[in-house]
Amino acid sequence: MTTTARKSPGSTRERILDSALRLFNAQGERNVTTNHIAEDLGISPGNLYYHFRNKADIVSELFNHYEALVSGFLQVPEDRVLTWQDKMGYLESILDSMWGARFFHRDLSHLLNQDEDLRLRYNAFVQRTLEQGLRVYEGLRSAGLLEATDEELRALMVNTWVITASWTGFVHGLVPPEKQQESLDHTLLRQGIYQLVCLEAPYLRGDAASHLAEIKQRYSAGDTLSVLFSAATPKSA
Amino acid sequence: MTTTARKSPGSTRERILDSALRLFNAQGERNVTTNHIAEDLGISPGNLYYHFRNKADIVSELFNHYEALVSGFLQVPEDRVLTWQDKMGYLESILDSMWGARFFHRDLSHLLNQDEDLRLRYNAFVQRTLEQGLRVYEGLRSAGLLEATDEELRALMVNTWVITASWTGFVHGLVPPEKQQESLDHTLLRQGIYQLVCLEAPYLRGDAASHLAEIKQRYSAGDTLSVLFSAATPKSA
Repeated sequence: MTTTARKSPGSTRERILDSALRLFNAQGERNVTTNHIAEDLGISPGNLYYHFRNKADIVSELFNHYEALVSGFLQVPEDRVLTWQDKMGYLESILDSMWGARFFHRDLSHLLNQDEDLRLRYNAFVQRTLEQGLRVYEGLRSAGLLEATDEELRALMVNTWVITASWTGFVHGLVPPEKQQESLDHTLLRQGIYQLVCLEAPYLRGDAASHLAEIKQRYSAGDTLSVLFSAATPKSA
Repeated sequence: MTTTARKSPGSTRERILDSALRLFNAQGERNVTTNHIAEDLGISPGNLYYHFRNKADIVSELFNHYEALVSGFLQVPEDRVLTWQDKMGYLESILDSMWGARFFHRDLSHLLNQDEDLRLRYNAFVQRTLEQGLRVYEGLRSAGLLEATDEELRALMVNTWVITASWTGFVHGLVPPEKQQESLDHTLLRQGIYQLVCLEAPYLRGDAASHLAEIKQRYSAGDTLSVLFSAATPKSA
């Protein structure tokens, strides 16, 4: 099944999800109602309710997509050793998934507090992701791209996760409302990938170590403290 | 002025703050009303409102205390070089301050969303803390306890902050409601200090490096993934 087929004009359900995701990411889930989504699509609220009982149902389905995406890219190929290009691929996929579902991590505790079922599923997702992520780190170690004891690797995995899951909320909270816009959000999110690279840097070996400066530069718009402080400064009138 | 004098029975204002902090930490700020606080103290709601206009006023004053505490311990002595015992002192102070105001970091986005003034003050606090923290790291480097380039140190500071500020919310969200209790919270919070130590570990030198195993052991109840997964498992009926 191709992406085009999935997004066929006939699929109102898919169009609702696309619109909701775009509006949630741009305006925050709290500020978007099902009526806004229906209006954005030019459909009646009744038509929307035919597909989703309420906004929580839409959030829940968007979480399904996000979960499947992360679980899909966090895999170690069985037929070959990992390369530093694979390492780059994981970083790009993390960036894309964080960006695609930024409304979710930006306001996580609010969303989980509202929906006990989602909270349970999120917890299972965190555990599964930590386990899959550890397999990836072990794969990188087997490939000679990373050197660390088991204890170091497990601690690194936890820190990587906490920074990944918290970054969007952290940086979004620092930017004054009048400066919030997609381009700044994206710059700050890339800076989060730079922070992940710095976190792993002491353990990188071989090709991963020799390309470190290049990888850092790819994701950063300067050192993070300076980028953050500049983003956090209110616009002068 | 001693702590005893500050907590003199005459100071209803201080007693309200103490009670609110205790209840917020134990039950979550969302679940505690000003009436609960008044009831806990055996005073009338009217008496409470004489001292604080509303719950947001109490949260704001508790934040003042927290801010002063952090700003107070995150200092580099001017008359001597830092020792690894100082390094331990910073970790203990971080742990104490996180524990003392755990309601705050556990539900940060909710609190900041409700109160624009608090959000502005929190942002200024984050910037100041990052700057003070960087001075501490530089002090540790000057003392030969840490080796890192300026770039590495600045990235390390950001990661340290994100993990410190996010840890309480992260672990609290993983624990099923029926297992939530102070002793588990405290174990998980100490595990957060272990994660900070692991984050800094590759850069530690001298006495800080030679005491690393001891410092790790002091804060951990095992490796964090195992501790988290065990805490996240629902109690069987």
